[in-house]
Amino acid sequence: MTPEKLASEEEIIAEFWAPLAAGSAGAFGLKDDCAAIAPPPGCELVVTTDGLIEGVHFIAGEPADAMAWKALAVNVSDLVAKGATPLAYVMSLALPQPDRAWLAAFAEGLAKAQAAFGCSLIGGDTDRTPGPLAISITAFGTVPAGRMLRRSTAKPGDAVYVSGTIGDAALGLALRRDRALEQRCELDSAAQAHLETRFRRPKPPIGLRNALLGYASAAMDVSDGLLKDFGRLCQASQAGGQIDATAVPLSAAARAVVAAGRATLADLLTGGEDYEVLAAVGPREAARFEGAAAASGTLVTRIGLIEKAAQGIRVIDGSGNAVAFKRTGWDHFAR
Amino acid sequence: MTPEKLASEEEIIAEFWAPLAAGSAGAFGLKDDCAAIAPPPGCELVVTTDGLIEGVHFIAGEPADAMAWKALAVNVSDLVAKGATPLAYVMSLALPQPDRAWLAAFAEGLAKAQAAFGCSLIGGDTDRTPGPLAISITAFGTVPAGRMLRRSTAKPGDAVYVSGTIGDAALGLALRRDRALEQRCELDSAAQAHLETRFRRPKPPIGLRNALLGYASAAMDVSDGLLKDFGRLCQASQAGGQIDATAVPLSAAARAVVAAGRATLADLLTGGEDYEVLAAVGPREAARFEGAAAASGTLVTRIGLIEKAAQGIRVIDGSGNAVAFKRTGWDHFAR
Repeated sequence: MTPEKLASEEEIIAEFWAPLAAGSAGAFGLKDDCAAIAPPPGCELVVTTDGLIEGVHFIAGEPADAMAWKALAVNVSDLVAKGATPLAYVMSLALPQPDRAWLAAFAEGLAKAQAAFGCSLIGGDTDRTPGPLAISITAFGTVPAGRMLRRSTAKPGDAVYVSGTIGDAALGLALRRDRALEQRCELDSAAQAHLETRFRRPKPPIGLRNALLGYASAAMDVSDGLLKDFGRLCQASQAGGQIDATAVPLSAAARAVVAAGRATLADLLTGGEDYEVLAAVGPREAARFEGAAAASGTLVTRIGLIEKAAQGIRVIDGSGNAVAFKRTGWDHFAR
Repeated sequence: MTPEKLASEEEIIAEFWAPLAAGSAGAFGLKDDCAAIAPPPGCELVVTTDGLIEGVHFIAGEPADAMAWKALAVNVSDLVAKGATPLAYVMSLALPQPDRAWLAAFAEGLAKAQAAFGCSLIGGDTDRTPGPLAISITAFGTVPAGRMLRRSTAKPGDAVYVSGTIGDAALGLALRRDRALEQRCELDSAAQAHLETRFRRPKPPIGLRNALLGYASAAMDVSDGLLKDFGRLCQASQAGGQIDATAVPLSAAARAVVAAGRATLADLLTGGEDYEVLAAVGPREAARFEGAAAASGTLVTRIGLIEKAAQGIRVIDGSGNAVAFKRTGWDHFAR
């Protein structure tokens, strides 16, 4: 069956994108060339952009709705880690073959994601490409003026926290690539579904905003591997630091895979795509940070300490001994 | 000679992109995950996004600096047509082969464009792609709150103006594709350079802002062909209208090509990539609009009239007779 083709970019906008913009007056129903956006009084906008390419950031052939969800989620993850409340996004989409069924599923994935994250589409650009599908989203959130959390402001003595659990997405990807893995790990269907969902439909911890804005001294999202991103936080802050590998929170499913010998702790700490928040919290604020996180229903776990730069950046085991890693995470230009 | 490869995204950011962000405090030197941006008091942000793909929007093999200029210019064009003053932009770049010389030229093109347009880079994302080079820019401008010009607010009786000259870029593309054309048209080198520059380095009329904000009732940029975009302006405004084809401003070079029989007026009016402004101006404001445009040094030409919807959308010749066109402009999904 030949996929039904679409006649024009206007038709695609009207049928698939305009419904996603219904919630924002400044989107003008996507009938204009630009959107208008203003932060609430006393606030400023936080802006991030992330592009995703099929075959690079997505496995080729992922369902359209999952790609759409993930494209928005990875941008929202940056906003959330900065203490921002998601507000709106624009999307530039390069389509190899724009058939109606694919676009409908993609729009459905975006609809679910923007409902979950509390933002709406305000503009975009849809083009054909001879190359792979590419989705570029620029997302906007709001913070009280001057309060955007930075990655460069952690201080020696700060406790290091991470939200959620680490490594699930890397295992979800491994499962997606090797269907026999679940049998070798003796994973039940719930555990398998958990890992795959964590890979396919990451949910940045949007509830953590008040705890972050109120008590964190620095924060960033964990997207390229916990160790790599921890190193970035320390370096940006001109600090050193340590993570206790045995304190890093793992899901029951991830623990089962490690117990079966099918993944190492190193795989989980360097796997990437967690889309959790890494935060430094001053020692006097730690209890309040934990309380605010608990009040929002967000799991946070203390996993380490910011130290002086001279002490370096390292991972220790439960006994305080240094653990060596061959690689710390993901870089697109160092493969 | 093997192009020099780059080690990491951090290295690319530090060497090529961070210097472009030096002018904006909210860019944090591109060392954070997000930027912070706020419109001045009483203003709001105008947002637009346009993606460009090599082989689709650019001829494959265009010089890197020209592609960079154009990628920013096409976004600034949307801002200018809305009455906005360019402020900042973010860029998502998908690179097939990130060698240093190419990136240096690309960054140089961006540097020149942002200096010309008065905006600076505040964030981005650089990835490798197995597909063609893709540049997605989201640009921000400022307007007094609620004053963004729309394409849907033209009224019957409004005069229709266009900035600059029309059709040069389409001829510049034709020259780029067929080097013998300049000889057949007997173009001198200045005329040839003019057309190619108009195609490669479009300059949206940023000086027109005050005239637009002060006196235009509706506006949009001309990017997909004058006739197509005029039709969009009329339809969005639920209006009809006419353009006098003989009134459309042409450069001396374009007139020479038409005189040589190598292009028709229809080619110019439907060719696209003009990146000029199309504006509707109430009859009482027309003289002041022209005066403000002249004061800014921007050529504007009255080319038509907005009418009631029942009168349809049409092109007339100098005698008032309707002229038929086979196509009106460019659509990525209707080739």
